[in-house]
Amino acid sequence: MIEVGVVGASGFVGGELLRLLAGHPEFALRYVSRSVGAGSTTVACTVAELHPQFGPGKGWQSLTVGPTRVEEAAQRCAAVFLATPAEVSAELAPALLAAGVEVVVDLSPAFRIQNPAVHRRWYPKVARTEPVEAVYGLPELNRAAIRTARLIAAPGCLATAAILSLLPLGELTGIGLGSITIDGKTGSTGSGNKLRETGLHAVRSGVVSPYAPFGHRHTAEIRQALRARGLRTTDGGLRLGMSVYSVDLVRGLSVAAYVMIEREAAGRGRLALDELYAHAYRDEPFVRVRDWRDGRVPMPDPKVTVGSNYCDVAAFHDTDADRLVLVAALDNLVKGAAGQAVQACNIRYGFADELGLSAQPLYPV
Amino acid sequence: MIEVGVVGASGFVGGELLRLLAGHPEFALRYVSRSVGAGSTTVACTVAELHPQFGPGKGWQSLTVGPTRVEEAAQRCAAVFLATPAEVSAELAPALLAAGVEVVVDLSPAFRIQNPAVHRRWYPKVARTEPVEAVYGLPELNRAAIRTARLIAAPGCLATAAILSLLPLGELTGIGLGSITIDGKTGSTGSGNKLRETGLHAVRSGVVSPYAPFGHRHTAEIRQALRARGLRTTDGGLRLGMSVYSVDLVRGLSVAAYVMIEREAAGRGRLALDELYAHAYRDEPFVRVRDWRDGRVPMPDPKVTVGSNYCDVAAFHDTDADRLVLVAALDNLVKGAAGQAVQACNIRYGFADELGLSAQPLYPV
Amino acid sequence: MIEVGVVGASGFVGGELLRLLAGHPEFALRYVSRSVGAGSTTVACTVAELHPQFGPGKGWQSLTVGPTRVEEAAQRCAAVFLATPAEVSAELAPALLAAGVEVVVDLSPAFRIQNPAVHRRWYPKVARTEPVEAVYGLPELNRAAIRTARLIAAPGCLATAAILSLLPLGELTGIGLGSITIDGKTGSTGSGNKLRETGLHAVRSGVVSPYAPFGHRHTAEIRQALRARGLRTTDGGLRLGMSVYSVDLVRGLSVAAYVMIEREAAGRGRLALDELYAHAYRDEPFVRVRDWRDGRVPMPDPKVTVGSNYCDVAAFHDTDADRLVLVAALDNLVKGAAGQAVQACNIRYGFADELGLSAQPLYPV
Amino acid sequence: MIEVGVVGASGFVGGELLRLLAGHPEFALRYVSRSVGAGSTTVACTVAELHPQFGPGKGWQSLTVGPTRVEEAAQRCAAVFLATPAEVSAELAPALLAAGVEVVVDLSPAFRIQNPAVHRRWYPKVARTEPVEAVYGLPELNRAAIRTARLIAAPGCLATAAILSLLPLGELTGIGLGSITIDGKTGSTGSGNKLRETGLHAVRSGVVSPYAPFGHRHTAEIRQALRARGLRTTDGGLRLGMSVYSVDLVRGLSVAAYVMIEREAAGRGRLALDELYAHAYRDEPFVRVRDWRDGRVPMPDPKVTVGSNYCDVAAFHDTDADRLVLVAALDNLVKGAAGQAVQACNIRYGFADELGLSAQPLYPV
Repeated sequence: MIEVGVVGASGFVGGELLRLLAGHPEFALRYVSRSVGAGSTTVACTVAELHPQFGPGKGWQSLTVGPTRVEEAAQRCAAVFLATPAEVSAELAPALLAAGVEVVVDLSPAFRIQNPAVHRRWYPKVARTEPVEAVYGLPELNRAAIRTARLIAAPGCLATAAILSLLPLGELTGIGLGSITIDGKTGSTGSGNKLRETGLHAVRSGVVSPYAPFGHRHTAEIRQALRARGLRTTDGGLRLGMSVYSVDLVRGLSVAAYVMIEREAAGRGRLALDELYAHAYRDEPFVRVRDWRDGRVPMPDPKVTVGSNYCDVAAFHDTDADRLVLVAALDNLVKGAAGQAVQACNIRYGFADELGLSAQPLYPV
Repeated sequence: MIEVGVVGASGFVGGELLRLLAGHPEFALRYVSRSVGAGSTTVACTVAELHPQFGPGKGWQSLTVGPTRVEEAAQRCAAVFLATPAEVSAELAPALLAAGVEVVVDLSPAFRIQNPAVHRRWYPKVARTEPVEAVYGLPELNRAAIRTARLIAAPGCLATAAILSLLPLGELTGIGLGSITIDGKTGSTGSGNKLRETGLHAVRSGVVSPYAPFGHRHTAEIRQALRARGLRTTDGGLRLGMSVYSVDLVRGLSVAAYVMIEREAAGRGRLALDELYAHAYRDEPFVRVRDWRDGRVPMPDPKVTVGSNYCDVAAFHDTDADRLVLVAALDNLVKGAAGQAVQACNIRYGFADELGLSAQPLYPV
Repeated sequence: MIEVGVVGASGFVGGELLRLLAGHPEFALRYVSRSVGAGSTTVACTVAELHPQFGPGKGWQSLTVGPTRVEEAAQRCAAVFLATPAEVSAELAPALLAAGVEVVVDLSPAFRIQNPAVHRRWYPKVARTEPVEAVYGLPELNRAAIRTARLIAAPGCLATAAILSLLPLGELTGIGLGSITIDGKTGSTGSGNKLRETGLHAVRSGVVSPYAPFGHRHTAEIRQALRARGLRTTDGGLRLGMSVYSVDLVRGLSVAAYVMIEREAAGRGRLALDELYAHAYRDEPFVRVRDWRDGRVPMPDPKVTVGSNYCDVAAFHDTDADRLVLVAALDNLVKGAAGQAVQACNIRYGFADELGLSAQPLYPV
Repeated sequence: MIEVGVVGASGFVGGELLRLLAGHPEFALRYVSRSVGAGSTTVACTVAELHPQFGPGKGWQSLTVGPTRVEEAAQRCAAVFLATPAEVSAELAPALLAAGVEVVVDLSPAFRIQNPAVHRRWYPKVARTEPVEAVYGLPELNRAAIRTARLIAAPGCLATAAILSLLPLGELTGIGLGSITIDGKTGSTGSGNKLRETGLHAVRSGVVSPYAPFGHRHTAEIRQALRARGLRTTDGGLRLGMSVYSVDLVRGLSVAAYVMIEREAAGRGRLALDELYAHAYRDEPFVRVRDWRDGRVPMPDPKVTVGSNYCDVAAFHDTDADRLVLVAALDNLVKGAAGQAVQACNIRYGFADELGLSAQPLYPV
């Protein structure tokens, strides 16, 4: 058993980490804390008192949750999951590693962007000590590097879906990608449990709210990942923009990537995208290439991934506009956060990806 | 008072027409019927028995709703609103006009597409007698023609939003439009009250369902309207694709049009879209150009249009990708259907657009 | 035209008052302010900037909203609506009347309870100067007194539904009421727009949350109103308890009153409740006695009252348990707050109840 | 490994059984079929094609789902779960047992009511051969009998919650129960996936719909279970009525039982219900006695049980009205159906109750 801890356990992602780790056969939950500096919320309580879904119990439910203490975490844990704000992670991750923690999996954006200048542009308030030796923890992109990483930067939720929808295009030949527009639709757990008026039920229900028509910060890690795979648009760079909307959903997100195709007049016809995608993900246990209408609902749809670590993808070729429509959907708290972090940690310790993550989606919910 | 009738009153659009006409100061509701051929549902009832929101009453609520009879409708009404399936409208509209009805406003797609070949491609099952002398009833596009029309084809709900988001681009000079991708998000009333498994509450709640990743039929009328205004993409045609998603919303829709900009290297900078849009719609009472963050929620958002005839629009220039983000939102049963039909009929009879349509949005709901 | 003002305009009830008054043919909106002491939110803005549903305009939308000034309100308005917290209303109402305002309609609970001791028990923090000469503003109970009132205390939303469901029982003879249990189900606008974790979309969606299993403050005004009508239970007092639940609804509430029947063995049989209720409300324009299954959905249901001033009621006799099931549903922001306040003000000024309130429900939404 | 089958796998309960059995360490899924006589839907498909949440796979996902064949089921399975309509179960259960199946767990109401006359009153269309030797499969009531049962009748979802909320009252002494009123609030999966207008998303969203103000069929099994525990009201019988509402929830239900207390004047005071309930359920792994405010949301709330087999209960004493408020909440597809069936089958085969059912609730969702 690997002894693990969760730091920053009071948010939605923290709760989800506790749920997954409590049921994991090889990770033993030994340490749970809240963010340092959380002020009035640092009164110690048990895990069961922290999240309403957990009832009293004699095991992990009875662990005391106090303010984060680096030494204590290092003594009790081989691996620590950080579900803290980026500013906090930027400090805690190196401190925990220095104190002897073997592996830190950080779920914040503190260490996702490798280029220091790009990091500063998108995250000017997240000061970190360079150079950073973190691995971007998307298993479908970086499996080999994850195996030996000490600091794993778990990807953003929208970024995970966007990257997985686009990655197989790296294998497309004979065509040019003119430009890429990403349209993301996301639920309310993506914003965490901070109090603000736009998060109120009365205000947030029934919306299609363009909260980031451009400039969403996940754009940076999407570009970084796609460039790493060699994706380019015909302008020589990577012309890619993203717009994100809040929709009336608690858990889940969907991303559509629209790619304009530029190609020679000869050989037009519908591209064989199904095969391309099936081949790209043939060995990935958590990417399901969906046939659009093989079920009750057109897919991919976040509704059919709830509670699971799956990312569902499908690719369409709209020949009328010579445009690719790439859709990906996932549960933002699982494959978009806690589940993906556990998957990466499984890989890091040589376990099968699926360990502790084999739950099928809960449907309908 | 103009005497009016509603044919096809049993659906959601029919109910909405009844609500608006019952409160209209210059239209008097004299005739209400259900579709011919509706089989088991043709038992006569009163308006109040047809829709649960209407209680008993001695006025319009007590009108008898029976199967449609063309002669009776023509005797009682100067103007008739058709909320019938396209196949039914294709027959009824000419019959009503022949029987002496002065104005028919058809809310189906039967008469929206002017070119017969294009109509047949998109609506192969809707046989109609050509030539069709119908006016596409979008006031912001065709105000003059509506004033003298006998047959008004009310636009589709997604098409209304898409066209209004894009129309002002006709005035943009010095740049080229590389391609247009439209992403629509729509509520469940857009599908009517037909029984199908994907429409069940348990199945339809919490979805982001790509029900039309390409090939949505409103694409045809969007192209037709934009071409009429002279919009072209740099390939010489109109490279435009649309993808539509069901989201967890009963009433309302949002459309984003993403336009890739191609232009000369000189003179780059953020385009002055706010002014362009404000000017384009300065005289239109039902198009509100919204400032993105001037309220509780980022806008445009269908949530702040519920129950009103407004279409809210906003335009952003994402300079990182040289991409325009044009967002429009409306209530699909009002500006997307019944309200727009009443607005067109107001124009046809020389009334102010706002007559009977001045209700402010219901918020929050 | 009666010149009116809205004090405390920034909340959901304030927004609804603005919507209704902006469309009212005999009330002219002349003054809009926020609560005194609202601290950081007292920067002056226009009505259009205060609520996202209202767009810019040259009329009432352009009124400046600043901090409340009693003298200014009194100079501009004959009648003032207070949508302020009870503590604020307790001060402002007498001050406004003293400054010359003709009529104050207070939507808070500050003046609902007549007995000073009962008021202190339920609202210990709401200090008010006794004696209070306020009329409980439920038209169906106090129409005559409202006609001459200077201070009208608009009823609570749950109380309105509960009282209207039970009032006709005052006419039942030959039976005894053993006890009354009220079960209320309410939407999120009932809690206002205060920031708290239980109000977050992610936390508040999908709940059936027993937020007041007993001790809800509306119990006090329900008792007061029923006693005023002479309702008693067989213990000689009024044995009545209420439990209230949050459900996943933005706007609307439903109340069920369960009444145990005690009666002589002779003459058992189903009670003719339909007639009793129809007779009791025969002259009330905003109480609809619904036939349970006369529409698409079993009724009463708040869904079929949205945006209207109707309270729908129905009464059932469960002969198996000799129990009455009395159900009432309404839109908590209209008949439960702003609409009822306007209705009372209509009565006060001798207008028809329906003036400015004739909108039919928006359905479905 | 016990070999098991699911008959009637196409509905929501069927899908949930597949999810739970696929992850069960001691039950091996060997047979899956649809209802006999389902007409057009009897085309064979795989499990993965039947439910959109399941992706393709080489294990249980690839099982063929055809029409039910009793002999085949008996050859392949020791235990069969029936998620069929009551009329179908009434035939299939005895046939399967006769064909050699060891244990049948029926999730329909066909065998819940023991008294033939009571069964005929409530289920006149469900003809069954008497006598029936079925055990009512509520573990908290009938654990011993379940251990040796061949036919287990899994309780109804509302009945499970209602019974668990009331069972501990059997131990209350010194007081009389005057009458019991149950108010149930339930989600849309409780109605299955039959097509009807009241089930449409547009119609079913945002409702509080009194679909069974009295006469709900679960009343019969609630009475049967409470009488079996000796519960009586002061009239000598069991004066109990239930009213049920649809609320805007997909999965989950909440039940409140309101019990009027009759007792001697001496010794009044708040009853120690917390202790009573904690003691009653001290050995039950799936009943959690909740402290009302020990978490983010007032409890019990179905939201904090989603996806788990827990039934949360809490009891309050409203001393103002001398009324008990007993609240229970659960996931209607798990503890209210599939989970409870698996729990009973665990007990039947001597496994721990929790086997395959240890998933913590998914929160928030």
